[in-house]
Amino acid sequence: MNKIYVVGIGPGAYKKMTIEAAEALKNSDVIIGYTVYVDLVKEHFPGKEFLTTPMRKEVERCRLAFEEAEKGKVVSMICSGDAGVYGMAGLMYEVGEEYPDVELEILPGVTAATAGAAVLGAPLIHDFCLISLSDLLTPWEKIEKRLRNAAEGDFVICLYNPSSKKRKDYLQKACDLILTCQAPETVCGIVGNIGRDGEAMQLMTLKELRDAQVDMFTTVFIGNSQTQNLNGHMVTPRGYRNV
Amino acid sequence: MNKIYVVGIGPGAYKKMTIEAAEALKNSDVIIGYTVYVDLVKEHFPGKEFLTTPMRKEVERCRLAFEEAEKGKVVSMICSGDAGVYGMAGLMYEVGEEYPDVELEILPGVTAATAGAAVLGAPLIHDFCLISLSDLLTPWEKIEKRLRNAAEGDFVICLYNPSSKKRKDYLQKACDLILTCQAPETVCGIVGNIGRDGEAMQLMTLKELRDAQVDMFTTVFIGNSQTQNLNGHMVTPRGYRNV
Repeated sequence: MNKIYVVGIGPGAYKKMTIEAAEALKNSDVIIGYTVYVDLVKEHFPGKEFLTTPMRKEVERCRLAFEEAEKGKVVSMICSGDAGVYGMAGLMYEVGEEYPDVELEILPGVTAATAGAAVLGAPLIHDFCLISLSDLLTPWEKIEKRLRNAAEGDFVICLYNPSSKKRKDYLQKACDLILTCQAPETVCGIVGNIGRDGEAMQLMTLKELRDAQVDMFTTVFIGNSQTQNLNGHMVTPRGYRNV
Repeated sequence: MNKIYVVGIGPGAYKKMTIEAAEALKNSDVIIGYTVYVDLVKEHFPGKEFLTTPMRKEVERCRLAFEEAEKGKVVSMICSGDAGVYGMAGLMYEVGEEYPDVELEILPGVTAATAGAAVLGAPLIHDFCLISLSDLLTPWEKIEKRLRNAAEGDFVICLYNPSSKKRKDYLQKACDLILTCQAPETVCGIVGNIGRDGEAMQLMTLKELRDAQVDMFTTVFIGNSQTQNLNGHMVTPRGYRNV
């Protein structure tokens, strides 16, 4: 049976890829992905055929993968982070209904939430929510409701896609919502370009985060009521009782 | 400066470890961890010194790591999954305040949420919450509140530690709470022994999940209102608009 690996390549650096992800790419004839991700891995897999489609052409990218697989080639579809977290794994199953003779194998990877957490310290040690602020495919009202529920539940919150050219004030709006439940001094952190050139992190309060400059390569972490700044590291305790 | 790597080894299988995690273990003199995790990696790193402490002896395990590092040894503290998700990274920073001359480097790994998701299909494609049902360190009322907030927000929910000998009915209680917001037909999935011998997955409805048999090696996935069963795969669409 023809097979496609849907591969999470991790945050960017080759060494943050899993061993099985690197093996799958080595064993593939064709590697397909968004241009930026293909550029991240290209140098490590010489001799492979690379195919790319730009952003917003995700359905076409999936079709391309199935068509190459139907030719009998071993295909890897790559995604940054984990293929199953705001990645292509879901759409590959949806489009895959038209290609019943092709089997999918999803290879998980390190997602920006845990890679960014490792840079900041240990903010995600306890229950947390992952929320994307992109309203390209989700109504903003739904995102607002989730932000409110997450803050009410005193979850640590990790935000993906906190900003873009068209959504400059979304992080500010999100912080204002969270500030109705959480203290202005809540410990927060941001990490830019996780596992890539120019990686940078910064700790701040929720009040300061509201006015922070972020871009589409930033991952945002908002602590729960117990999260601390321990000598410059963002750390959430494991529990609420002394151990 | 003395250094400790706090290493997420992924769900269990060696090939699901990141390249940098394997390198850190290769470069370490001493590898420290909970007995079960040390047994998972031992055969791949011959010639290393392995030190273990049992469950519930986490603070002692941290102290052991710092004491070995102060002797000038390169130390790796290993955790299953990601060291920063219900792992040892946080406690290492807390205990580390007593050892200011030892530096920590956290190496992220693939956590059970995304590894299990890859087995089921693509359940975590959209916003999700991670909640542990263990009330060893968190009051049950707090867990209940979070379950309710997560269900109200229509998050996909991933449950860690869904059961233990002392907490046989916790998953049932959790499902009853979620059923106040989500339909009984909500698509759910469970994965046991992710990335280890005996890996097994099953799809079911929320109503069926309520009475499912799970143990401490099971990870539970509860879909949002849009999650589908696509030919036996649990798939959450990327968004709420047609693409």
